[in-house]
Amino acid sequence: MQHQPLDPDFETRIRSSFARQAFMTTLGAELFEIEPGRVGIELPFRLDLTQQHGFMHAGALAAVADSACGYAALSLMPTGAAVLSVEFKINLMQPAAGPRFRALGKVLRAGRMLTVCTGEVHACHDDRQVVIAVMQATLMTIQERSGMAD
Amino acid sequence: MQHQPLDPDFETRIRSSFARQAFMTTLGAELFEIEPGRVGIELPFRLDLTQQHGFMHAGALAAVADSACGYAALSLMPTGAAVLSVEFKINLMQPAAGPRFRALGKVLRAGRMLTVCTGEVHACHDDRQVVIAVMQATLMTIQERSGMAD
Amino acid sequence: MQHQPLDPDFETRIRSSFARQAFMTTLGAELFEIEPGRVGIELPFRLDLTQQHGFMHAGALAAVADSACGYAALSLMPTGAAVLSVEFKINLMQPAAGPRFRALGKVLRAGRMLTVCTGEVHACHDDRQVVIAVMQATLMTIQERSGMAD
Amino acid sequence: MQHQPLDPDFETRIRSSFARQAFMTTLGAELFEIEPGRVGIELPFRLDLTQQHGFMHAGALAAVADSACGYAALSLMPTGAAVLSVEFKINLMQPAAGPRFRALGKVLRAGRMLTVCTGEVHACHDDRQVVIAVMQATLMTIQERSGMAD
Repeated sequence: MQHQPLDPDFETRIRSSFARQAFMTTLGAELFEIEPGRVGIELPFRLDLTQQHGFMHAGALAAVADSACGYAALSLMPTGAAVLSVEFKINLMQPAAGPRFRALGKVLRAGRMLTVCTGEVHACHDDRQVVIAVMQATLMTIQERSGMAD
Repeated sequence: MQHQPLDPDFETRIRSSFARQAFMTTLGAELFEIEPGRVGIELPFRLDLTQQHGFMHAGALAAVADSACGYAALSLMPTGAAVLSVEFKINLMQPAAGPRFRALGKVLRAGRMLTVCTGEVHACHDDRQVVIAVMQATLMTIQERSGMAD
Repeated sequence: MQHQPLDPDFETRIRSSFARQAFMTTLGAELFEIEPGRVGIELPFRLDLTQQHGFMHAGALAAVADSACGYAALSLMPTGAAVLSVEFKINLMQPAAGPRFRALGKVLRAGRMLTVCTGEVHACHDDRQVVIAVMQATLMTIQERSGMAD
Repeated sequence: MQHQPLDPDFETRIRSSFARQAFMTTLGAELFEIEPGRVGIELPFRLDLTQQHGFMHAGALAAVADSACGYAALSLMPTGAAVLSVEFKINLMQPAAGPRFRALGKVLRAGRMLTVCTGEVHACHDDRQVVIAVMQATLMTIQERSGMAD
């Protein structure tokens, strides 16, 4: 799918907004791809993000997948818009084991008010990548309020 | 709904498992209720868990709601069982503002292999509580592997 | 939860719209409850609505639960509004066996543009009711277009 | 993704099971593709399957998408297995207008007990196809009971 951004500065806007998502910094997550309708976030494995079996907690994966979908949606929104998560659903298909994880959010349909995205979380091993979780998410376009950058 | 626990030590098992969920410690989350088929987790507001607008990140709320649903499911599982998240869906209904948040997971149907839970996230203000998010989740019963306590 | 309807004629509006949902007639579904923020639809068992094991097809249950959630949302919308389903998620907890089924949709949060509902599907036996499926749904308020009644 | 069927007669099994899904006959739905891990069902537009605005009812689309995902899952299950829908979530991205619709279910992950599928519903016009809905679904493998073919 080929997407045309409405805001030529979409990458700057996303990087600036991501930098203000304090939770991403807390998790140690970083942007690794920004294209129109497509954003990737990398999350290295950390022991303090695990669940009781030593795998990454589903909530940590959901957080980066949600942000990846949100920024994929934002990449196609007009200047002055901000993005809100309406809802998301995630299927956890494999144990989250591996040295690092990559969440990729892609826009399936960008409407004026609502955007639908699909997200994938990959466990990245040295020699292979495995899809361990998939997300389906709905995002909303809101107006950036004065003093509240997106 | 009245639920009968199969393992009389369900509370100890849940507290012990929660203590091993390193991500819950990282988030500053704490158990505040453990009943058969019903578990609550409290998450105080922290700036380092926020998204770009200063509200709590949806992923942080999803993490505690997922754990609350998972432990609600575990509370009804037999001795020697462990719990895995199969999938969850969350609707974010209001901005996550407030001094602290409470995620409450409740079992709707406990099957031999699969358990269905509903979760609610409340923003707790001094004078009122507001439901800001709802979750619907599927959990799976697995056998605790040797050396891998749940 | 107590809801105040914005349109005093909400019941008439819902009955009229339901009568135009040809699929509900095809399924043999009927409205059995209309309250502000709460709508119920009954679906009698029919062999031609079953899946391969002789239970009601999940899609038939999802259809009436979706309509129940949609009309629960519509009951709180202003005059001149119409309702669209944005997305829904359903968990099928028990085989859909029984002489008739009741889907109940309830509004959890009615926003200006988006409404979040929860739905339950009950199998109604002579002596008991069993919750066999639960739904979480997002609905959108749209403007009724000229010539297109809701 | 390349999938290897465990049951060489998977196509026969699916056709036979589909023929017993009375609801598919009621809807006028037909199988148009059966591959390992991939099943397609076509649904022609019919006035008696519409909602109040004259578009196909979301429940009718969900029904064929659910069946497509279920049979995609069944195509990879061993001989003697049957399939149950655990849950599904569908996003309705565009009005369901068009002469016919095609639901395509694909297996993302086939586990011993649980299978995760993604589904797409296309509106098929003479000159183009448009994706109007996407589904994410969880299916369960069960043992075919005596006298109850899948």
